[in-house]
Amino acid sequence: MPAPRRPKAIPDRAPNPFKPGAPPPPRIRIQDPTPAVDGGAWPAKRCVGDVVRVEADIFRDGHEVLKAVVRHRRVGARKWSEAPLERFDRHLGGDRWAGEFTVEGQGRHEFTIQAWVDFWGSWRDELTRKAAFGQDDLSGELSEGEVLLRGAAEQANGPAKQLIDRALKTLSEPKAPQEAKVDAALGEELDAAVEACQSRLEGTTHAPNLEIEVDRVLARFGSWYELFPRSFGGFTGVAKQIPTLKELGFDVLYLPPIHPIGEKNRKGRNNALLATKKDPGSPWAIGHHAHGGHDAIHPDLGTLADFDAMVAAAKAHDIEIALDFAIQCSADHPWLTEHPEWFHHRPDGTLKYAENPPKKYQDIYNVNWNCDDWQGLWSALLDILKYWVGRGVTVFRVDNPHTKPLGFWEWAIAEVRKDDPDVIFLAEAFTRRKIMQALAKLGFNQSYTYFTWKNTAWELREYVAELAHGPEADYFRPNFFANTPDILTDYLQHGGPAGFAIRAVLAATLSPTYGIYSGFEHFEGTAREPNSEEYLNSEKYESWKRDLDGPLLPFIARLNHARRAHPCLQRLDNVSFLGTESDALLAYAKRTGDDCIIVVANVDPHHPQEGTVIVPFESGLPPSFTVEDLLSDPTHPAVYDWRLGRNFVRLDPAHQVAHVFVVRAA
Amino acid sequence: MPAPRRPKAIPDRAPNPFKPGAPPPPRIRIQDPTPAVDGGAWPAKRCVGDVVRVEADIFRDGHEVLKAVVRHRRVGARKWSEAPLERFDRHLGGDRWAGEFTVEGQGRHEFTIQAWVDFWGSWRDELTRKAAFGQDDLSGELSEGEVLLRGAAEQANGPAKQLIDRALKTLSEPKAPQEAKVDAALGEELDAAVEACQSRLEGTTHAPNLEIEVDRVLARFGSWYELFPRSFGGFTGVAKQIPTLKELGFDVLYLPPIHPIGEKNRKGRNNALLATKKDPGSPWAIGHHAHGGHDAIHPDLGTLADFDAMVAAAKAHDIEIALDFAIQCSADHPWLTEHPEWFHHRPDGTLKYAENPPKKYQDIYNVNWNCDDWQGLWSALLDILKYWVGRGVTVFRVDNPHTKPLGFWEWAIAEVRKDDPDVIFLAEAFTRRKIMQALAKLGFNQSYTYFTWKNTAWELREYVAELAHGPEADYFRPNFFANTPDILTDYLQHGGPAGFAIRAVLAATLSPTYGIYSGFEHFEGTAREPNSEEYLNSEKYESWKRDLDGPLLPFIARLNHARRAHPCLQRLDNVSFLGTESDALLAYAKRTGDDCIIVVANVDPHHPQEGTVIVPFESGLPPSFTVEDLLSDPTHPAVYDWRLGRNFVRLDPAHQVAHVFVVRAA
Repeated sequence: MPAPRRPKAIPDRAPNPFKPGAPPPPRIRIQDPTPAVDGGAWPAKRCVGDVVRVEADIFRDGHEVLKAVVRHRRVGARKWSEAPLERFDRHLGGDRWAGEFTVEGQGRHEFTIQAWVDFWGSWRDELTRKAAFGQDDLSGELSEGEVLLRGAAEQANGPAKQLIDRALKTLSEPKAPQEAKVDAALGEELDAAVEACQSRLEGTTHAPNLEIEVDRVLARFGSWYELFPRSFGGFTGVAKQIPTLKELGFDVLYLPPIHPIGEKNRKGRNNALLATKKDPGSPWAIGHHAHGGHDAIHPDLGTLADFDAMVAAAKAHDIEIALDFAIQCSADHPWLTEHPEWFHHRPDGTLKYAENPPKKYQDIYNVNWNCDDWQGLWSALLDILKYWVGRGVTVFRVDNPHTKPLGFWEWAIAEVRKDDPDVIFLAEAFTRRKIMQALAKLGFNQSYTYFTWKNTAWELREYVAELAHGPEADYFRPNFFANTPDILTDYLQHGGPAGFAIRAVLAATLSPTYGIYSGFEHFEGTAREPNSEEYLNSEKYESWKRDLDGPLLPFIARLNHARRAHPCLQRLDNVSFLGTESDALLAYAKRTGDDCIIVVANVDPHHPQEGTVIVPFESGLPPSFTVEDLLSDPTHPAVYDWRLGRNFVRLDPAHQVAHVFVVRAA
Repeated sequence: MPAPRRPKAIPDRAPNPFKPGAPPPPRIRIQDPTPAVDGGAWPAKRCVGDVVRVEADIFRDGHEVLKAVVRHRRVGARKWSEAPLERFDRHLGGDRWAGEFTVEGQGRHEFTIQAWVDFWGSWRDELTRKAAFGQDDLSGELSEGEVLLRGAAEQANGPAKQLIDRALKTLSEPKAPQEAKVDAALGEELDAAVEACQSRLEGTTHAPNLEIEVDRVLARFGSWYELFPRSFGGFTGVAKQIPTLKELGFDVLYLPPIHPIGEKNRKGRNNALLATKKDPGSPWAIGHHAHGGHDAIHPDLGTLADFDAMVAAAKAHDIEIALDFAIQCSADHPWLTEHPEWFHHRPDGTLKYAENPPKKYQDIYNVNWNCDDWQGLWSALLDILKYWVGRGVTVFRVDNPHTKPLGFWEWAIAEVRKDDPDVIFLAEAFTRRKIMQALAKLGFNQSYTYFTWKNTAWELREYVAELAHGPEADYFRPNFFANTPDILTDYLQHGGPAGFAIRAVLAATLSPTYGIYSGFEHFEGTAREPNSEEYLNSEKYESWKRDLDGPLLPFIARLNHARRAHPCLQRLDNVSFLGTESDALLAYAKRTGDDCIIVVANVDPHHPQEGTVIVPFESGLPPSFTVEDLLSDPTHPAVYDWRLGRNFVRLDPAHQVAHVFVVRAA
């Protein structure tokens, strides 16, 4: 065989594409950091005091030891804080790192991940393995360690520098035995000293930063009560109820629109097309030619001073007033004449009322978001929000936000919260999930949910698990309303008092924020007609005489007090469902630190149901423990001995629809 | 009660933050388009002729009808092509749209999504509903339609314009009866005409564009054979085997490194620390002071002309040569003296060989990727790749890419494929999943996998389902090697001939690309020592005398021919696993168009196993059909009557390890 010829020159010598002297591209990769909503397009949501768990994939080619931290700060702050990340799935051959920090203040925060090569740690690891194996000659290795230590010494000072210098002296002493040098190099104190001062070589930082919107705790946890002020004697009457609402354990008092109601085309009782003289009209038909629009108060409810007094009374009792923000105008709204350019017109020039063919809403005019003066319209709407914030309103329940441009909400919520970060927006959107998610992502602090129609155990398990543990957990905060003036569910129509009690327990213990609309505690459950979710003689079209005397209120108060006493009920992310061996029993545990609640509910309002609650080993509970039912009479509490594994439960809705057990040590 | 005062002026009038005359922000949202690897950070991979299914969430506030298209083109092309998108989960209340297009040419493609409001369609929908409901006066609605039609008429020409003008005439005729106007407005031909020419109002395009790397089909589908040329008489001997390899159905012939092997510190038989004079050394110890490095050929294998002749012979038989690209140098490599600056040095200036403490690889020197002249090193490595491409090499099997900087591969693969988009890179990385994924994302066209160690039915189901249907499906193309010179699995050591046959069936029918290393067909299964995956007397350290005469080859040829004859075996994304009522039987169907294969394998090489193959209704197969076993004698094929539901199967590994059924119409 002839001697091989080595090719003389490689053809197509590739031109060097890099800048002379440039460092090599980073070798560490940082990927998929969380929390990140849509890859970081939107801020994740947290509340003041929350521990934020941060994760990321961090890896590099080769075998060097890596180190990583999360860097975090308030947006606008100069200095970063740092917390360490650890690779937590090493035993699975994974590259996922995690760490955590606490968000202390309200407002927008940002974080990023930084990783670097721990050359000292890599070298130390190598030397440890070689020394353990008994390698004879370690002089080459030790000479490398000397170089690393010299580098560290340059950065160090104080006791750290003394430690490093001492080790360096041993390593550089030609006559010192190898064993002494190895011992000196592997000392744990030395390790800590070098670690603290070594440079972050190959330091790589994830870009862009990811954001977290930190709200006050009311954004996550609160008990809401909704009432029509006209049924309680206007603002002055409502103010008188505040101490009772406080005793009942409510945090937010939500009022449907308080503005003047149109006279033209007013709807009558039960949504009749023609109103009689006595019919007060729907509060959602906002605006009256004489009394004003969204910035005015209905004369029947009182004066602005009465309103202010009600807000002050609420504030004195730590209750917040939530107003309804409904962007629509009655046929009588001043804007129809002052700003006709903000509304839809037919080609013949006439104004166009709202429709959902074949339904017509002659009493309501929607604004034309695509009008030429959209900027004027947006500004006027923002002015309204800011006006009420100026009068002490801190919460808005936004009516049907999904029929208004998403971009408007993004802008308006940011504008309001720029000056008043305390203000909380609740999205009343019952629509397709993606749109509800989009509203939450763009800034709504809370959202109405599908809870209203989730009645069976499996539906509730599935839905709540999605909210608590799926991607929505980072940005979609549920507000579980058990009923609303618009929604009298089939379940409440046919479940009787037990049905109301069950829904109260579920709403109040599944979701950290929940609410009821007055009438709930009176078991009001008659629909206007079959297959309708409208109330017969709906309060939307009438004035009632109401008082806080419903028979279910003491039960609800007990729930509210349990919610307040038990931090674990103030979160959603800690819920885990338990097996019950029954289709009709729903059981779940919530645990935060030492505080643990186990709820068992019979979702069948008509029949006694029995089964077991299976407490798993992973619950972390001891083999046996005591549970005390917070729904039982506190002077003679019902107490049971429970254990890991199966615990028998029987719930007869005629007597008791659910247990809300607090777990006590055995 | 005193008359309410309307507040005179809203305080804090918000300044208008928008540019005067600017249009309102877009109301349509386009989210989560797919395919998108890491949200679009990396291109998705497809092959020429593939149908690309595109999806996105598309929605807008309100009730207007939306339309959407995917726009796609080759990167660099001026014109976009379009294909329609349809909302496919409307019945579930979803907002997910999908459409598809075919990628015809090789290279980088890009696509985006465009959506707009179909005001004509929205109006038509409203009029249809109102007319069906029997609304009396539709004059307002018809006047709106007239405006829309006039807009369309301005864009239209030809027959479309005539249609629109005719409808306009009817609509604007004061004496025409309303019914005639409605009929004219709702005509289907008119609808098509208006649709074709209406402007894309509120048109919104997703940014940035998403990329697709389109490879030739060999990147997805190919049968690989690996041999050591020194065991087959060098390049000339290998060239003689090409026709046989072709008959056996192989597409790629992969050769371990063909370069000169170092003499200094050469390893002997069974990885002995000292080689004898006769030991040829490991081909992965690349480089010899006299014969050259990565751009040279081992003198024992032949001349450059012999190499070229082998490549030409392969090409003539439609077989491609895959070279090994291993970035490491023997103790004898010319670079160690020519470019000592590219290697690791101890502080005392000596070169540092490879180690994985306590293991030492004195015969191998790794390059120092962090050296000052990293640019020179990168360029030299690229030159080597380009040199072999210039000599007709179209496939590289890259040795241990995970111990080299990811950024290097990203750059080098792009540089090679810029000029030669035919070149395919296979990543031989057996490491943590995230790193294997990262290599695939950055440009490797194929990857070694964990298949080698997935032996039970459940492991295979889980792993293959992840590759076929998980996020990796978009960028990670598996190459299922059944054995390699480095990996003699426990299963092959103890499974006997049946074990080899089972692994061949699984590799060849689960993955569109698979491979074997010669010795497989001889059932070579003796390990060097217990608990080792190294072969006893490994060919890595010896020269053998081999021929393509292994007893399993006819069986493998049958598999290869089935793979070539059946398009459904050339894909991974079409696999669905079938129930078997047996832990030891693995069954799966692959279907592409009318072509359908059902594989049943007994993964237990030691015992007969029986069970059923459950063909589900969703398979789309008729209630009863015939299956023919492609592994049976083609002159007397085994044929069975099968049906939807359970089909009994018994497989005795002593006689038959698997069925590869082609489904024939009943």
